[in-house]
Amino acid sequence: MPRRRPCPSHKKLGKVSLVGAGPGDPGLITVKGLKLIQQAEVLLYDHLIPKSLLGDAPRSAELIPVGKKHGAHSLSQQAIQELLFQKSREGKRVVRLKGGDPYLFGRGGEEMIFLRSRGVPAEVVPGITSAIAVPALAGIPVTQRHLAMTFAVASGHVTEDNSPIPVPDADTLVYVMCVSDLDKTVKGILKKRSAGTSCAVIENGTTPKERVIVGTLRNIVKKARGAGLVAPAVFIVGDVIKLRGKVLERVGKR
Amino acid sequence: MPRRRPCPSHKKLGKVSLVGAGPGDPGLITVKGLKLIQQAEVLLYDHLIPKSLLGDAPRSAELIPVGKKHGAHSLSQQAIQELLFQKSREGKRVVRLKGGDPYLFGRGGEEMIFLRSRGVPAEVVPGITSAIAVPALAGIPVTQRHLAMTFAVASGHVTEDNSPIPVPDADTLVYVMCVSDLDKTVKGILKKRSAGTSCAVIENGTTPKERVIVGTLRNIVKKARGAGLVAPAVFIVGDVIKLRGKVLERVGKR
Repeated sequence: MPRRRPCPSHKKLGKVSLVGAGPGDPGLITVKGLKLIQQAEVLLYDHLIPKSLLGDAPRSAELIPVGKKHGAHSLSQQAIQELLFQKSREGKRVVRLKGGDPYLFGRGGEEMIFLRSRGVPAEVVPGITSAIAVPALAGIPVTQRHLAMTFAVASGHVTEDNSPIPVPDADTLVYVMCVSDLDKTVKGILKKRSAGTSCAVIENGTTPKERVIVGTLRNIVKKARGAGLVAPAVFIVGDVIKLRGKVLERVGKR
Repeated sequence: MPRRRPCPSHKKLGKVSLVGAGPGDPGLITVKGLKLIQQAEVLLYDHLIPKSLLGDAPRSAELIPVGKKHGAHSLSQQAIQELLFQKSREGKRVVRLKGGDPYLFGRGGEEMIFLRSRGVPAEVVPGITSAIAVPALAGIPVTQRHLAMTFAVASGHVTEDNSPIPVPDADTLVYVMCVSDLDKTVKGILKKRSAGTSCAVIENGTTPKERVIVGTLRNIVKKARGAGLVAPAVFIVGDVIKLRGKVLERVGKR
């Protein structure tokens, strides 16, 4: 097919699919998400996606990395959105591949609102969130009858306006993006929960590089520092941590 | 292959995989989950799974429905667990297919602990949870910068011990299994949030039969009753409901 030039007034806008790539294990993308990658003409992808999924795109597809590495964006959110729009205007079938789920701290909502406001046909394809799957594959169910009947997720990253890390009153708390501000997160939780509360940090969850650091609110910051914790990691707090010894996988680990 | 008789003392235990089938759309199962179905020798499945997935099992596979329809279990939890164990003892490759995610109100933790305690090689394969995906495909992101920075999930079903429905103080609240006790759930939330709070009930989310009822805490029970709401449905509460008009899909709907 010859390369087409953008011609916005006469061309049909290409469809943009915001696809959740899941938590790290490439087998945890959805069947629908994988099909869309296999049909993509343009693929914009975040840093935190399983890289092997790029090999599922057609060889002719244009692959564009758009960040975000350790909080530093290679492209601003605005620039990513404009690029999605531009590729749609070229009539291309665009996949925007995001780590985890697009709508759980993935800015998928912002991208969708931007695209819809410009009339771009857009859809979201949910992904497995690391907030649930990373603990699961480390042997920790986020809910359990009689033990944890509510589950909450928040970001463990202090935003530019420096507002405090939120601490919802749920039995199980999961913080995504937990590495840079783990000390502040723990300090915040300690205002509501005892220092002996069980918790765990899971680095590179669902991948062969997974590391699990188990502790209490009293010692987890020191333990994580001692272990040289790096992103991506998920922080989980609550009694469900104690189930780990009973649940832990001995097969199926990659 | 000849049919083998159970012979527990001499046989290797078969592997059991607890697989999340996702929220309803069969395309939202994971690639890994689908592969396991395609290789299953025995498949135990819940009522709330996309039935077309059963067609992906080998024709020789034994398919066993084990409930749970509208809260009524066709088999007790204990009986399901014993059956999983029995099939594993027969040396079979067993898939336990559950709606949504096995560890988010799916009793997957209980099944895993039971199996591990009997030495069964068992693994969990996360699924897309309806708590996130059902709102997403109805045009509602569960988080959004500056609007909803925390997200909590609870069960909207009053348990046998009659304890009150929990109301975590998160920006976005999602209740799964919300139909039978929606009035009690709303009553509980009204102790913490104003009657004008936006909310929505989504019936048969992610499927062609999806129905969305939008309202406020003041009128949602009446609206749901008037619409003849039936299970499965998800109840979502918070300002993110207001994004719906800006986000709503116009393509990719099945």
